Amino acid sequence: MANIVVKKLERTPIDETPVEIVERKGIGHPDSICDGIAESVSVALCKMYKEKLGVVLHHNTDQVELVGGYAYPKLGGGCMINPIYVLLSGRATAEVLDKETGKIVKLPVNTTAVNAAREYLKKALRNIDLEKDVVVDCRIGQGSVDLVEVFDRKRSEIPHANDTSFGVGHAPLSTTEKIVLETEKLLNSAELKAIVPGVGEDIKVMGLREGKKITLTIAMAVVDKYADSLEEYEKVKEMAHKKVVENAQKYLNGHELEVFINTADDEECIFLTVTGTSAEMGDDGSVGRGNRANGLITPFRPMSMEATSGKNPINHIGKIYNILSNIIASDVAELEEVKECQIRILSQIGKPITEPKILSIEVIPENGFTLDDVTKKATEVAEKWLDNIQNVTEKIVEGKVTTF
Amino acid sequence: MANIVVKKLERTPIDETPVEIVERKGIGHPDSICDGIAESVSVALCKMYKEKLGVVLHHNTDQVELVGGYAYPKLGGGCMINPIYVLLSGRATAEVLDKETGKIVKLPVNTTAVNAAREYLKKALRNIDLEKDVVVDCRIGQGSVDLVEVFDRKRSEIPHANDTSFGVGHAPLSTTEKIVLETEKLLNSAELKAIVPGVGEDIKVMGLREGKKITLTIAMAVVDKYADSLEEYEKVKEMAHKKVVENAQKYLNGHELEVFINTADDEECIFLTVTGTSAEMGDDGSVGRGNRANGLITPFRPMSMEATSGKNPINHIGKIYNILSNIIASDVAELEEVKECQIRILSQIGKPITEPKILSIEVIPENGFTLDDVTKKATEVAEKWLDNIQNVTEKIVEGKVTTF
Amino acid sequence: MANIVVKKLERTPIDETPVEIVERKGIGHPDSICDGIAESVSVALCKMYKEKLGVVLHHNTDQVELVGGYAYPKLGGGCMINPIYVLLSGRATAEVLDKETGKIVKLPVNTTAVNAAREYLKKALRNIDLEKDVVVDCRIGQGSVDLVEVFDRKRSEIPHANDTSFGVGHAPLSTTEKIVLETEKLLNSAELKAIVPGVGEDIKVMGLREGKKITLTIAMAVVDKYADSLEEYEKVKEMAHKKVVENAQKYLNGHELEVFINTADDEECIFLTVTGTSAEMGDDGSVGRGNRANGLITPFRPMSMEATSGKNPINHIGKIYNILSNIIASDVAELEEVKECQIRILSQIGKPITEPKILSIEVIPENGFTLDDVTKKATEVAEKWLDNIQNVTEKIVEGKVTTF
Amino acid sequence: MANIVVKKLERTPIDETPVEIVERKGIGHPDSICDGIAESVSVALCKMYKEKLGVVLHHNTDQVELVGGYAYPKLGGGCMINPIYVLLSGRATAEVLDKETGKIVKLPVNTTAVNAAREYLKKALRNIDLEKDVVVDCRIGQGSVDLVEVFDRKRSEIPHANDTSFGVGHAPLSTTEKIVLETEKLLNSAELKAIVPGVGEDIKVMGLREGKKITLTIAMAVVDKYADSLEEYEKVKEMAHKKVVENAQKYLNGHELEVFINTADDEECIFLTVTGTSAEMGDDGSVGRGNRANGLITPFRPMSMEATSGKNPINHIGKIYNILSNIIASDVAELEEVKECQIRILSQIGKPITEPKILSIEVIPENGFTLDDVTKKATEVAEKWLDNIQNVTEKIVEGKVTTF
Repeated sequence: MANIVVKKLERTPIDETPVEIVERKGIGHPDSICDGIAESVSVALCKMYKEKLGVVLHHNTDQVELVGGYAYPKLGGGCMINPIYVLLSGRATAEVLDKETGKIVKLPVNTTAVNAAREYLKKALRNIDLEKDVVVDCRIGQGSVDLVEVFDRKRSEIPHANDTSFGVGHAPLSTTEKIVLETEKLLNSAELKAIVPGVGEDIKVMGLREGKKITLTIAMAVVDKYADSLEEYEKVKEMAHKKVVENAQKYLNGHELEVFINTADDEECIFLTVTGTSAEMGDDGSVGRGNRANGLITPFRPMSMEATSGKNPINHIGKIYNILSNIIASDVAELEEVKECQIRILSQIGKPITEPKILSIEVIPENGFTLDDVTKKATEVAEKWLDNIQNVTEKIVEGKVTTF
Repeated sequence: MANIVVKKLERTPIDETPVEIVERKGIGHPDSICDGIAESVSVALCKMYKEKLGVVLHHNTDQVELVGGYAYPKLGGGCMINPIYVLLSGRATAEVLDKETGKIVKLPVNTTAVNAAREYLKKALRNIDLEKDVVVDCRIGQGSVDLVEVFDRKRSEIPHANDTSFGVGHAPLSTTEKIVLETEKLLNSAELKAIVPGVGEDIKVMGLREGKKITLTIAMAVVDKYADSLEEYEKVKEMAHKKVVENAQKYLNGHELEVFINTADDEECIFLTVTGTSAEMGDDGSVGRGNRANGLITPFRPMSMEATSGKNPINHIGKIYNILSNIIASDVAELEEVKECQIRILSQIGKPITEPKILSIEVIPENGFTLDDVTKKATEVAEKWLDNIQNVTEKIVEGKVTTF
Repeated sequence: MANIVVKKLERTPIDETPVEIVERKGIGHPDSICDGIAESVSVALCKMYKEKLGVVLHHNTDQVELVGGYAYPKLGGGCMINPIYVLLSGRATAEVLDKETGKIVKLPVNTTAVNAAREYLKKALRNIDLEKDVVVDCRIGQGSVDLVEVFDRKRSEIPHANDTSFGVGHAPLSTTEKIVLETEKLLNSAELKAIVPGVGEDIKVMGLREGKKITLTIAMAVVDKYADSLEEYEKVKEMAHKKVVENAQKYLNGHELEVFINTADDEECIFLTVTGTSAEMGDDGSVGRGNRANGLITPFRPMSMEATSGKNPINHIGKIYNILSNIIASDVAELEEVKECQIRILSQIGKPITEPKILSIEVIPENGFTLDDVTKKATEVAEKWLDNIQNVTEKIVEGKVTTF
Repeated sequence: MANIVVKKLERTPIDETPVEIVERKGIGHPDSICDGIAESVSVALCKMYKEKLGVVLHHNTDQVELVGGYAYPKLGGGCMINPIYVLLSGRATAEVLDKETGKIVKLPVNTTAVNAAREYLKKALRNIDLEKDVVVDCRIGQGSVDLVEVFDRKRSEIPHANDTSFGVGHAPLSTTEKIVLETEKLLNSAELKAIVPGVGEDIKVMGLREGKKITLTIAMAVVDKYADSLEEYEKVKEMAHKKVVENAQKYLNGHELEVFINTADDEECIFLTVTGTSAEMGDDGSVGRGNRANGLITPFRPMSMEATSGKNPINHIGKIYNILSNIIASDVAELEEVKECQIRILSQIGKPITEPKILSIEVIPENGFTLDDVTKKATEVAEKWLDNIQNVTEKIVEGKVTTF
């Protein structure tokens, strides 16, 4: 039986605190590119393993290093000089023993990984030319033999935790969090790109709330071929600004809003790119250094250091419990008795992942409710999800869970 | 004038909370190896720039990817099969215009970086053979031209913040934090290695406090050539266990302690290594995914996602403000009126680093004191450090500040 | 005035010698793949330089290393496990000083090179999937500064020889040479692939002539997806065999012919591939280790060790004089007075390429003619080509000269 | 029984021909560096295999790509900016099945290779700092499974030829050949370096003989830290010149000699290096593009295109027959009846290496002798060596045979 504890969250409701900082690195930010590649590679490997063997084998492809290229953006359209270099690493089971033939069978881990990375890049960065602007290299290795065997042996049972680690999650999102998240989503939406194609994918949104005032500072790459002049560059910024402000109204909830886009622009330096990402020009990236599993960086909230993207969805606690914490938090927060909720799940290495050492639910009850009103319902929510943990895994395997 | 705000920290003193999780990845952990290399490279570049030009030029070498090797550890001494691959990336100014001659001068960025990485590895991992067990490769690139020029122009003045970002810090360490930190330091001390040479450098200490009980779960690599048999392997663990328990007494402060070392060991699988680090066998690492600037991962405290190691110490907010927050927190916590203290510093891109947008000091006053008793003194501490910020930079340049 | 010497070639006409060995590595052989990439990259750089600056700048991209992949060919269709890794290196001018603005302009050398390599691979290997089966990496560097300046200065004049080196050529091809060359061309022709799509591009033809008997030993990759069974594999070989024998009749000239395809085949091992090249399975390749400039390896003839592919066509003697030697030999051999002809051109470093130190023409006159009958005409042929050397360069720049 | 044929060599004795060109790339030339590394790696693997398993397993490490670095040589001592990058590739058996345990055993191929390469570089290039000036990377792969098995099966018997290929050799060396060879040896001898330490290892000697006049054109790197001024640079050249002329007297045999060192030097450009090799500054190298197995490039003699260095010494015809041809030629040339001798050995794939398809001995008898006088003795020499072919292999395994 899982050790589920429900407690009072000892702090002021987040929207009522004096200061809050929230950040989101958009999908074209070099760190997010790495997160996206890492997760795509993992999803592709899951698919390959299932096709070849019927089960997902051990892998952690949460190591992607992006070395920035060199570009000459130019109003009207420049070019890339040196390609971006992407190194896929991590480890994945590449050999299995076919018990019938007694032969070692090698699995197409590296070709699958390279393919997944390239497909992801095409999808995520509209304006990059994969035939010349990016080199995708691969040094994914075999894991330690013993780990592979452990993994293999347990395939029919509930997987056991790979480590002593933990996940955290919270819900609902604060006003600032919602606005930051939705702003990036808007700017990277197909709808907006159709209207303002000059908006690149490398978008960093920093939200600062002081009391009731929210300030969004947005660094937004502009794609050079869609801006023939400084005027057009400014127009791209203005149109984006207008859309952001419009869109934020839905979430403002009585807060005041100020939006700055590319505040560092001056005569000599504007955020102009050939490809829509600063990765083209020396900005490097890695997995796990950007958004947490909920898509945000929230230094005023508890966070896990674990990279979620690219980890295997079978027994990697750093991945599963972070995702699960957010899911449980979300469901608990929907209870009418709950105002805010924060989840922490701590694993015990070697124990079934359905049996965490502690699953702690901290809540701020809604006005008029007490902790006692919540305890039973919240516990049930948690129990239900622990019982259904393999559905979570299944969804991750299918690429239906966002991890950054 | 800096915007310094002193407020009450709205939470129970950390040692009195019901649960606390603290982790430290030791210097031989693949992520820490990357942090250590990144910072060594930055320190070496600072030195090279100063020797050649008198000033530190722009660089961020916070991108190191370690791709694990393949090893055959064996009781009594095994060997490595595939070397560990270390890719240095990031960017650094490699060309400057010599105004007298009108010629571009290239600077030995890459040879300096490779050298620093190799020297660091030799120092950090006693049992690795740099002539065969590690490949250090380098793809550090030139940064964007505009950034370089900005940097150059401002060299005599107070540097301006490179980004809208923030740092966080706290003091004093909680009992659990202190024990976790000191346990790893002990196990990686020259003194202990002299007595128990079998203890490798890859040591992960996970501390869990439940009420008054602290449990340390330690994953500790054992170096195979120092353990001829399973008995000797066990003896290394026992001796380490004894030393850890002994050492922890100094910090226990009335808590109960339980220590587990290599709990996942079973007949088929022990944590035996050729080199003292799991990097030898498929465990990969990157910068900024392990310890925060204070050497710990503290999910129950506010944390910054910024990688501190390898960032330039001149104007990189993610580095300077994280280090500065810890320094200020430490000094504020030494005031007799203060029980606990938490610092957050938020930058304004383009403004002098001595003028953060907000420097927030949150304190829990000691019993018998109020916030008012603290405000003035704490503010003075913060002001003094903001005025002396370039001393902090100086110390980082000299390699005297730990960043992970 | 060039130092042109016409002499008697002191040997038996080649077709009358007792033994002759001739080899050709087909376009899908790993060494030829590298030659092809190297030359494509050079041609693409020439084009890029001309578009950007109006002149071809210094480059030598005759360094391509192909590291074989790992494949699982299977009758009916297998897959690649590890991609082929192609490293482009060599050097090319990547920075020029724009005298008007006084700024350094960077040129898209590396993106152009990656693009050219990928385009070439697509064209040369019908059955390879560039999205997963090959990684094209690039480490082309800037050449030494001084060389670049020399090059730049001379752009309007006749280029000066880059080295003390030489080229060799001969004509006409011997019977064996012709058959070897035409056999590979046939097997890699669009016409044949249309009829026998199972024939891969990796084809090595070794011709041995003993007296009047020619033996062709052909190693020919078969593409697995076009051969569902061993019978079909054998049928591919049979059809190829039939076509080769048929085609050779045109060149046999009274010789007897025997053709062996994949003689090493046995029950356990056939030359089956996923992609049509052995590069998929551990066979590595480099530039300049296969065919000479005339498409053949002829150990019974003088040969130059110089890699022709990838060298710059402006002043690289190893390239220009090898190609020129073959062109001059070909024209001299067409004189009715000439039976066989062999050309050697030796450069003088730093002198105009139109002024070789020696251009030696060795001939075997046709029956009934003497050396004196040839001397003047042959000298005129050589003079004409030296005068028109820049037309040769032009053709190379346009990618119209085969170099391997 | 081997098919040994003795024939008359139909040409003028080499020293009496009108023109001869001979070249040697010294040990510090980028191509020779690659040859040396390739052979060192092979020798080290042979040793490792014998230690671990008692037999040499399949490998061909004849693929080394050297990507030149970037250096700032300066009179008095400069520095390297970008390290030289050396990529080891090729293939080697890295896994064997231990029949007793039924487990796959991995062999330390890559660590052994990296180690051998670094050790060789230290030995070959006195002035390079391996800790910063060179990156040695390794992508050596497993060969195709089938080849490995073939190899394994045959280990106790006479190895069978891996390919249809051939080797060529000749003896004695011509006067020009001897002088070219000995000149490079002198300039790279410990004795000369002791007297003129400024002489680098990158030395290319081009010998041109016209009638009785030999011209040596030498490109010789000078190490900057041993030349504080242009005068000292010139002095290094002068001392080298003097020694070369002195040394050549022993071999001149009535020829006239002229020696040029660094003829391309001018005010702006001298051949100054930090490390003694042009590899420091963009000059790339590969295996098999320089000296043939006898240490020379001799375009007026038959040559094999095969890279000898790095090939396995057990069954690789391209290696064994080239070395054997030179050995047999040397012994045949010592017969008093023989003036000059040329050997060609052609293999039959799959047949024992002691049974070549043809071993052809072509001789120019000494004055007063006929072919008949030579045939029997020469045949005996060849038979003796074929019988002792495994001694040749043994010597190669022990690193006692020079291959370039």
